[in-house]
Amino acid sequence: MSPEAERAFAARLAASARRAEAALDAALPPEGAGAEGRLAAAMRRGALAGGKRLRAFLVIETAALFGAEEAGADRAAAALECLHAYSLVHDDLPCMDDDDLRRGLPTVHVEWDEATAVLAGDALQTLAFELLADPAAHPDPARRAEMCLILARASGFAGMVGGQALDIAAETAERPLTVEEIAALQAKKTGALIRVAAEIGAVLGGADAEARAALVAYGAALGAAFQIADDILDATGDEAAAGKRLGKDGEAGKATYVSLLGLETARARAAALADEAALRLAPFGPRAAALEAAARFAVSRTA
Amino acid sequence: MSPEAERAFAARLAASARRAEAALDAALPPEGAGAEGRLAAAMRRGALAGGKRLRAFLVIETAALFGAEEAGADRAAAALECLHAYSLVHDDLPCMDDDDLRRGLPTVHVEWDEATAVLAGDALQTLAFELLADPAAHPDPARRAEMCLILARASGFAGMVGGQALDIAAETAERPLTVEEIAALQAKKTGALIRVAAEIGAVLGGADAEARAALVAYGAALGAAFQIADDILDATGDEAAAGKRLGKDGEAGKATYVSLLGLETARARAAALADEAALRLAPFGPRAAALEAAARFAVSRTA
Repeated sequence: MSPEAERAFAARLAASARRAEAALDAALPPEGAGAEGRLAAAMRRGALAGGKRLRAFLVIETAALFGAEEAGADRAAAALECLHAYSLVHDDLPCMDDDDLRRGLPTVHVEWDEATAVLAGDALQTLAFELLADPAAHPDPARRAEMCLILARASGFAGMVGGQALDIAAETAERPLTVEEIAALQAKKTGALIRVAAEIGAVLGGADAEARAALVAYGAALGAAFQIADDILDATGDEAAAGKRLGKDGEAGKATYVSLLGLETARARAAALADEAALRLAPFGPRAAALEAAARFAVSRTA
Repeated sequence: MSPEAERAFAARLAASARRAEAALDAALPPEGAGAEGRLAAAMRRGALAGGKRLRAFLVIETAALFGAEEAGADRAAAALECLHAYSLVHDDLPCMDDDDLRRGLPTVHVEWDEATAVLAGDALQTLAFELLADPAAHPDPARRAEMCLILARASGFAGMVGGQALDIAAETAERPLTVEEIAALQAKKTGALIRVAAEIGAVLGGADAEARAALVAYGAALGAAFQIADDILDATGDEAAAGKRLGKDGEAGKATYVSLLGLETARARAAALADEAALRLAPFGPRAAALEAAARFAVSRTA
């Protein structure tokens, strides 16, 4: 990416993050004294403590391709971020990845306790569906029901949660995963939610079947590129910039794209996926420049 | 209840349980080898290992008042049972209530492990929304979106999860809860889901605002009666019949309806709530006999 394109993209990413965070702030309960105030505080930490907001960006930018009303897109973007945040709060639990640091802050179960982390994650998942089902997301209930259905299919057993189960099992498997198995795992664990972020924007905007399919293919390629880049960063990146512990997969002897393909081949594969993602945006012309830049960013990022 | 009415009600309850369980069995992924098969097995244990299926009964019987199509009602009933099952799997976790027995079987984290229990609960919550958002629940997307919204509002921070946070905090509170505080807690923790089970049947069936409000009031009174009866059973019941440990609240010095009101006053209050629930059904005449019997059963049950 040219420095100019990178700056333009960074500004768009920051703008959609601000919009999604304002919608999150409005949707989340207020923190305060007592058990509910504590739970609200934990939910807010999980949902509001930074992050790239890639999923919010995808909802907002794909919805904008079809001229969708902004306030509704912001709420749908907030829904995707709630779903993502719930998965991180639960993944960080001692019985899962046992992480004590997330985006430079103590994880929810460290700052509060495990029960609060389980409940905060649970309530963030619920809030994701509440945001999509609420008439404020879109006046047409067909679009709201469709968004709920798409999100559920991508994030449950057949998607994100199933992928997380595969990932945990891989840590104690008798043999390391193959590249094909890692791709299948990641397509569920992280790819599905990135893909449906683009699809939900399309549904919100009333895209026809062809445009929707193009954005689904874009999201799938972007998600795959993003995950390979994540493995590259885990092997080569800077912990301070990432705000979390790196190199864990290597230490655990876990197969990654980098360990199986080598650094250069992994980089080439990520770049090819970014090209594929960009290609899927051709029908939308220059209006999709920010989405194309996201695909380039996914593989060139340093955190 | 007369023995005859009790038998008639037991038959209706068993019939709706069979229908909901068939819908659950069809919606749940198949158990098998590997990480996903294990996760599926844990989800199936959580959702299919018995229970009274009161929530399924309420969906099916209230939907039937309006002539709703049965297959859709069965899926909506399965959704409520998934949501309930997820809450039990997570509530049983060591960091929450730390229960090792549920309906006479080892709890999910005991039979499998904690990570699997967290993920199985997560995926069961997702499946609840997937079932309600799917066109198979009802051809009208407005009803599907409304059911998703109602379920989300009742089960998240402002409902079930918030109630569970209050309940956990009560165990370490400086003073025992008052009766009013217990009622508010239980209205969220267990009452909200029972109430919306009745409401979701009404929405599925296309009830008008008046009929829907009557069923919401019925469900609220039934849920409150049910919870007082639960406290009574916890203090006086039979562990073998209940399939779980009893007397835990008393041992923990936790305030309950029984400890605060005494057994007789608690029984009288539960009976009054059952009367109130029955009263709300008056507009539906004899077609609502099974729902009325449910209110009687809630306070006369022995397990």
